Amino acid sequence: MSRILITSGPTRQYLDPVRYLTNASSGRMGSALAAAAIAEGHQVVIVSGPVSVAYPAAAEIINVETTDEMLTASMSAFESCDGAIGAAAPCDYMPRFIQTQKIAKTGDALQLELIETADVVAMLGQRKKQGQWVVGFALETEDRRFRATVKLQKKCCDWIVSNGPQAIDSDQNDIELLNRHGDVILTVQGTKEQVATELMKKISEQLPDEKLDVKR
Amino acid sequence: MSRILITSGPTRQYLDPVRYLTNASSGRMGSALAAAAIAEGHQVVIVSGPVSVAYPAAAEIINVETTDEMLTASMSAFESCDGAIGAAAPCDYMPRFIQTQKIAKTGDALQLELIETADVVAMLGQRKKQGQWVVGFALETEDRRFRATVKLQKKCCDWIVSNGPQAIDSDQNDIELLNRHGDVILTVQGTKEQVATELMKKISEQLPDEKLDVKR
Repeated sequence: MSRILITSGPTRQYLDPVRYLTNASSGRMGSALAAAAIAEGHQVVIVSGPVSVAYPAAAEIINVETTDEMLTASMSAFESCDGAIGAAAPCDYMPRFIQTQKIAKTGDALQLELIETADVVAMLGQRKKQGQWVVGFALETEDRRFRATVKLQKKCCDWIVSNGPQAIDSDQNDIELLNRHGDVILTVQGTKEQVATELMKKISEQLPDEKLDVKR
Repeated sequence: MSRILITSGPTRQYLDPVRYLTNASSGRMGSALAAAAIAEGHQVVIVSGPVSVAYPAAAEIINVETTDEMLTASMSAFESCDGAIGAAAPCDYMPRFIQTQKIAKTGDALQLELIETADVVAMLGQRKKQGQWVVGFALETEDRRFRATVKLQKKCCDWIVSNGPQAIDSDQNDIELLNRHGDVILTVQGTKEQVATELMKKISEQLPDEKLDVKR
């Protein structure tokens, strides 16, 4: 049995007490992966942004709101895990300045300077110790396979799942799992549950034997 | 019986196919107002942004995503209504330019120019015909009563409900209903259902007699 960290859902980056940047990530892929991992006999810790999806009761859930909170919680949880799957879609830009009061409309345009947030999966990839593994997700609208492979290398992932924006807030997904050489080692199209099951099977197969104690 | 338009929930303003600006409005206040209005014998049309809340089955629902869509749907629905309650929190800024492909991270800051979206309640207030009425909501973090009264006048509302940011995505609300002179004509603190019931009672009381055919 492995202990697996799954990041899930979106994060929010506030401009002021009311308005924020985010994306439509629903947490369904994370929830489906957690259920598939538990079904294979693994222990699961989920670090999740704000979602309305239900997670498996057997999973340990850590709720966060911003990308920095997701980073801190994930780095800490990863210490006791064998591997991590970055299924979250953390907001990757944040306003350089956050207003403490609601920004009042003036009729003029508002210039907003956005800076990049920390990259949660890249930090997990860079900090992983001997024996730990990291699977990233890449969501791209063009040059999907190429950009996913670049991301895998930049983020020090072991594998990366490439999918498109139609996956967001949908019941369905259409993915490719790529290894470090950019080879497609799995293609799945179907419900997020079907995709999660196939992905977890493949991930488990690739784990070093000593990490495996799965029921099958 | 009156026919009442209720706007509800947040809207989304996309930067690119993935990222958007929004707020945490849940649609619970809109749903509670719809239920209270239906309970008083009114007909209800809800124009709602993306929410996970359930609306009363007896209400007619029009789903929208952006503020412009909420404006178009609301202006059209308002033509057959006696009054409107603007319980939505439409995103009030939008990027001047929307990228058709996902913006790739470069490591540099991203300068985002935001322009104001159309003001749905102000447009309803300005276009209302003889006998039609509009109730707005004002969510402010400071000078609440003063700013609400300014908003009421600017948006040509008949009444305005002033509440604070703690109302967002909460079961509770704490409101003041202000008339055109800035007088507080109702104060309610409680669940959104309790607030909605008291608000609808007060609104119905203030309606011209010929608009009323309520069961009480």
